[in-house]
Amino acid sequence: MRPSKRDADELRAVTLERGVSKHAEGSCLVKFGDTHVLCTASLEERVPPWLRGQQRGWVTAEYGMLPRATGERMRREASVGKQSGRTQEIQRLIGRSLRAVVDLEALGEYQISVDCDVIQADGGTRTASITGAWVALRDCIEWMRARDMVTKPVLKDHVAAISCGIYKGTPVLDLDYVEDSAAETDANFVLTGTGGIVEIQGTAEGAPFTEDEFAALLGLAKKGIGRLVDLQKMSIL
Amino acid sequence: MRPSKRDADELRAVTLERGVSKHAEGSCLVKFGDTHVLCTASLEERVPPWLRGQQRGWVTAEYGMLPRATGERMRREASVGKQSGRTQEIQRLIGRSLRAVVDLEALGEYQISVDCDVIQADGGTRTASITGAWVALRDCIEWMRARDMVTKPVLKDHVAAISCGIYKGTPVLDLDYVEDSAAETDANFVLTGTGGIVEIQGTAEGAPFTEDEFAALLGLAKKGIGRLVDLQKMSIL
Amino acid sequence: MRPSKRDADELRAVTLERGVSKHAEGSCLVKFGDTHVLCTASLEERVPPWLRGQQRGWVTAEYGMLPRATGERMRREASVGKQSGRTQEIQRLIGRSLRAVVDLEALGEYQISVDCDVIQADGGTRTASITGAWVALRDCIEWMRARDMVTKPVLKDHVAAISCGIYKGTPVLDLDYVEDSAAETDANFVLTGTGGIVEIQGTAEGAPFTEDEFAALLGLAKKGIGRLVDLQKMSIL
Amino acid sequence: MRPSKRDADELRAVTLERGVSKHAEGSCLVKFGDTHVLCTASLEERVPPWLRGQQRGWVTAEYGMLPRATGERMRREASVGKQSGRTQEIQRLIGRSLRAVVDLEALGEYQISVDCDVIQADGGTRTASITGAWVALRDCIEWMRARDMVTKPVLKDHVAAISCGIYKGTPVLDLDYVEDSAAETDANFVLTGTGGIVEIQGTAEGAPFTEDEFAALLGLAKKGIGRLVDLQKMSIL
Amino acid sequence: MRPSKRDADELRAVTLERGVSKHAEGSCLVKFGDTHVLCTASLEERVPPWLRGQQRGWVTAEYGMLPRATGERMRREASVGKQSGRTQEIQRLIGRSLRAVVDLEALGEYQISVDCDVIQADGGTRTASITGAWVALRDCIEWMRARDMVTKPVLKDHVAAISCGIYKGTPVLDLDYVEDSAAETDANFVLTGTGGIVEIQGTAEGAPFTEDEFAALLGLAKKGIGRLVDLQKMSIL
Amino acid sequence: MRPSKRDADELRAVTLERGVSKHAEGSCLVKFGDTHVLCTASLEERVPPWLRGQQRGWVTAEYGMLPRATGERMRREASVGKQSGRTQEIQRLIGRSLRAVVDLEALGEYQISVDCDVIQADGGTRTASITGAWVALRDCIEWMRARDMVTKPVLKDHVAAISCGIYKGTPVLDLDYVEDSAAETDANFVLTGTGGIVEIQGTAEGAPFTEDEFAALLGLAKKGIGRLVDLQKMSIL
Repeated sequence: MRPSKRDADELRAVTLERGVSKHAEGSCLVKFGDTHVLCTASLEERVPPWLRGQQRGWVTAEYGMLPRATGERMRREASVGKQSGRTQEIQRLIGRSLRAVVDLEALGEYQISVDCDVIQADGGTRTASITGAWVALRDCIEWMRARDMVTKPVLKDHVAAISCGIYKGTPVLDLDYVEDSAAETDANFVLTGTGGIVEIQGTAEGAPFTEDEFAALLGLAKKGIGRLVDLQKMSIL
Repeated sequence: MRPSKRDADELRAVTLERGVSKHAEGSCLVKFGDTHVLCTASLEERVPPWLRGQQRGWVTAEYGMLPRATGERMRREASVGKQSGRTQEIQRLIGRSLRAVVDLEALGEYQISVDCDVIQADGGTRTASITGAWVALRDCIEWMRARDMVTKPVLKDHVAAISCGIYKGTPVLDLDYVEDSAAETDANFVLTGTGGIVEIQGTAEGAPFTEDEFAALLGLAKKGIGRLVDLQKMSIL
Repeated sequence: MRPSKRDADELRAVTLERGVSKHAEGSCLVKFGDTHVLCTASLEERVPPWLRGQQRGWVTAEYGMLPRATGERMRREASVGKQSGRTQEIQRLIGRSLRAVVDLEALGEYQISVDCDVIQADGGTRTASITGAWVALRDCIEWMRARDMVTKPVLKDHVAAISCGIYKGTPVLDLDYVEDSAAETDANFVLTGTGGIVEIQGTAEGAPFTEDEFAALLGLAKKGIGRLVDLQKMSIL
Repeated sequence: MRPSKRDADELRAVTLERGVSKHAEGSCLVKFGDTHVLCTASLEERVPPWLRGQQRGWVTAEYGMLPRATGERMRREASVGKQSGRTQEIQRLIGRSLRAVVDLEALGEYQISVDCDVIQADGGTRTASITGAWVALRDCIEWMRARDMVTKPVLKDHVAAISCGIYKGTPVLDLDYVEDSAAETDANFVLTGTGGIVEIQGTAEGAPFTEDEFAALLGLAKKGIGRLVDLQKMSIL
Repeated sequence: MRPSKRDADELRAVTLERGVSKHAEGSCLVKFGDTHVLCTASLEERVPPWLRGQQRGWVTAEYGMLPRATGERMRREASVGKQSGRTQEIQRLIGRSLRAVVDLEALGEYQISVDCDVIQADGGTRTASITGAWVALRDCIEWMRARDMVTKPVLKDHVAAISCGIYKGTPVLDLDYVEDSAAETDANFVLTGTGGIVEIQGTAEGAPFTEDEFAALLGLAKKGIGRLVDLQKMSIL
Repeated sequence: MRPSKRDADELRAVTLERGVSKHAEGSCLVKFGDTHVLCTASLEERVPPWLRGQQRGWVTAEYGMLPRATGERMRREASVGKQSGRTQEIQRLIGRSLRAVVDLEALGEYQISVDCDVIQADGGTRTASITGAWVALRDCIEWMRARDMVTKPVLKDHVAAISCGIYKGTPVLDLDYVEDSAAETDANFVLTGTGGIVEIQGTAEGAPFTEDEFAALLGLAKKGIGRLVDLQKMSIL
């Protein structure tokens, strides 16, 4: 039995709250249980130098954690003077995941920067970030559409993410911190609304895992992400 | 008339919500109108090197802003690689303000780090931070007391802060961003619950100001901080 | 009685020596007793990016301390790799103080950078810096006037600064290091030649202070700054 | 047809040259075609602070590229002043991959640092690094064994890595730079000698990919890594 | 007798291997015994900002050491976040030495960056770097000539470098690491093919040295560099 | 004729003013004409980690320039965030030069840090620094002797430095900035009081130089340094 009493294929309580920022063009406070991430999408008129003049836009992401989002206080990255390897890895993943469902030419010469800041962490911050970031990004694009800054469809699909792992020998969905710390294998999946795979990251924490185990994790992920995409759809009704 | 329709001596709606963090020993989400700051107090067993072995504790503070807390997205300090002068100035002020009401010997050889992270900014982030930080600090000390880590009184008094300014020739209390941008003079006051002055910072943005104007600002601040201390008291009933 | 035997309202010996740099457009070696600061004003043809094309100039300041300006050698900031929060706070204060008396439009599209480098420290380095910086800035502007780079009046007034504090219960003027270390309250005042207040910073080092105490400090500051402005006037005769 | 004329399931010419460093306890120059990586394993007597006194060792990795390893010269990370997100991501992957086959308790309280420096790059630098790093690590452990620093088996298995991708609609093995730049999907696999999965990273560069496509890539990877493990075995005969 | 059994005026085995990089416009792997340095010359179309529009080019150099090039592993400069003073000193020396034999006007508005990366170190890395860098630079210029990017002679002469030192009282040529660590005096000489002196750096490691000793070292250097220039000539036949 | 009207073998006016710092254990303001350097020697009770417990001391040096020490204002290194290669090269040279005349065992387990800060620059800042640093160091050691912290002789000899160069074809002594900028060859010599050579650095700025030219420069240097050592002796009478 899981510490959280959840079934093997059961997500934590997930909520997506839109419009939580007075300033941002799009925003979403996403909660996967006790993991809370504030996602804001900011429209910027300038694109990166290497894109200028190409009639294409860009979507990028940054990720951060408040120092006491975690059980023990971590040092503030701004005060340390650099972002950790883990932070950079996550923000690159979020950016790639979002760009996989954006038509950068339809966006036009704009950049959208999505900030995912973890207010409270309990495992799965990167998957919650991606899931919430899509909502913030979507609202930013609608904000632009309302002002005729984009005319064609920009978002090609939904994108959401979930972690799976093998916990005490059983494949389970959506690991919280306690499970994540003890899991033998940890995998993150990023899928589109139509079931296409955008990103797979699987890591053996202890013993290597088998192809069958991996297939079981992927099966769970497809189920979980299907549910997350439904929640995204409901949130924007 | 103020853009916010408030009277000259009227605070914005202020709320202090305790216990907002699952992990921190003390926490408070403080709102001064649209300025929202999450304050967490973290207990750490080690004190700074220069204090070791002296049977005294330390209280320190760090301050940060989410990149899109503001009207225009700012660069993330962790990604820039250093904290701005403004950030450092503010976090030093918060730390000094809290220490002014803490008996460091009664605290014993512990450090409490208070993080003030601005979730949304609309002027007055440093004064909201100090006001909320006191509540988070207080709850952290009570957490320690419940575990017999402190026995004597540690907090000597309340401390809270407010900004005042001269806006279109009139001294007003608790500037929001629109007023702050246009104010001729901007001053921040940090006072204790018993009315003692902990810190005064007054700056002429345009023309220098007079002694009488300054006295008017101080008068407003005393009134406003009295009200903030009342709210702190109610929040911890 | 003060350790320095001075009266409560007595400045240290203050000298302002102009033209001490072979290269700078304006320069002043200011001494407040054993506190010695070399101020140089450097004319630069380019303004900061955000000011370009606006027909306005800019005045900025940087502050530094030689490593052995103090009783114990401090680490060199260039070797540490960053400026401390204290350094940034001081150089921002110097810049704001100077700009309060400069007509940036009359200056035209030039930047003047004033460097205040503490050769020897004995308390009051920021107030000595501001007082000497005004002289260096003034000479730089005269250098420009002699070359027809400015035609209208650029400096609107004098500006000078002094510290005051409550030492063993008595308000005193112009704290030296020994007094500063022991003072219960420490305040820095920046005033113009005509008595306008540019900046006030008051900090309770131990117990909070009262409004009356603060008024006494302001009274001393007005007297001291009046004398400093007289010395500035004599120095440029 | 592939630009390199290789069959879809054909590796580039792979060589593993041991003992290439006069100083390192273990070393291997690995070549995957024109991708050349120098791997050195350095024995260090001290473990990271968080491991001290636990009778366990640690294996870590660092990754770098010579500035002109690539077609266009890149800025030297030492001169830029920080490692890129990509560099950090890769060196974390190498370290995790090696640790998956090391018995850290059998290693005892030592740290082995494996440096993977890309002398010349033509795609697949991270997979070549892992494959060569295993050989360098193995020789370092044998060096220790010859000196009785370890007695029990430390290496539990081989580990090697390969990239696969979908190039013009066809799944292919071991992408070189030209193929990698044009591939629709890119995946890296890290497997043990007995076929266990240590790490999977799959990324859709353009359109999302399907579960079947992913299965095809995994099939190719198993075949390629089997061959790489054979080459490792031959190299240490 | 020298630890290496060499005569006092005997170089280590020196080899210069050209064309070792698939990508660089010029490259040379230089070996002075067990000291191995990979030199690559990279052509860049842009010159430094202060040279733009002057119809002149620039030659610059960067130097690095792989972490385990040395007997004990050194920390990676990219991970430390800055280049050491020693690294900067050496790369400035290499750059100056190369520029001494280049006609920057004949080069035209191009920059050539020469990277010298020490693969294995056994003393004399800076002198090997200069000697090999000349070959890489020469091949880069020939690459340009073949494409009509330069027409006039660009290289005015050969340049090469060698260390000398006083080891156990005797002046010796081309110190290896063991000799270098024990030498009383260490000097590096950079000379042109026609015997002109480009750079001399002599340092007393222990007792100061005399004018006669220095003359003996210079005599050895001239002999050794004559031989190195012969080897350069043979390498480019 | 030299721009300064000096004879070829004539130093600028050199003064060595001791005791210029209220705080430092030894200090000297050295002037070589318009080049002014403040040298302070600071006694520190701790030695670098790698020297601990060896009953030996250490002498180190740091070098800096005030931003407007030069004709054009340079960026402040503390604000840039790192020391330039030139700065590091010079401070390493000063440290080596001083250590060449110090008996580190006689010094005992103390570190003396000598700071050389250029107040005004007109060429030759490194040679003035070394010459003045010796005086500051000597006074620091005498300060220790007066407190019985050292008993045996610590300073083995004088050390001083001078630049020479070939200006318009003529070897000249002690280049000022104008000469230095135009010199074909520039060399710095560090010699002891008894004429031993501690350090030689010769650089061809344009065309390489000959052995005879170098001998002429060395001859001038010996003469000039003899005079500087006389001035050091007079200063400490």
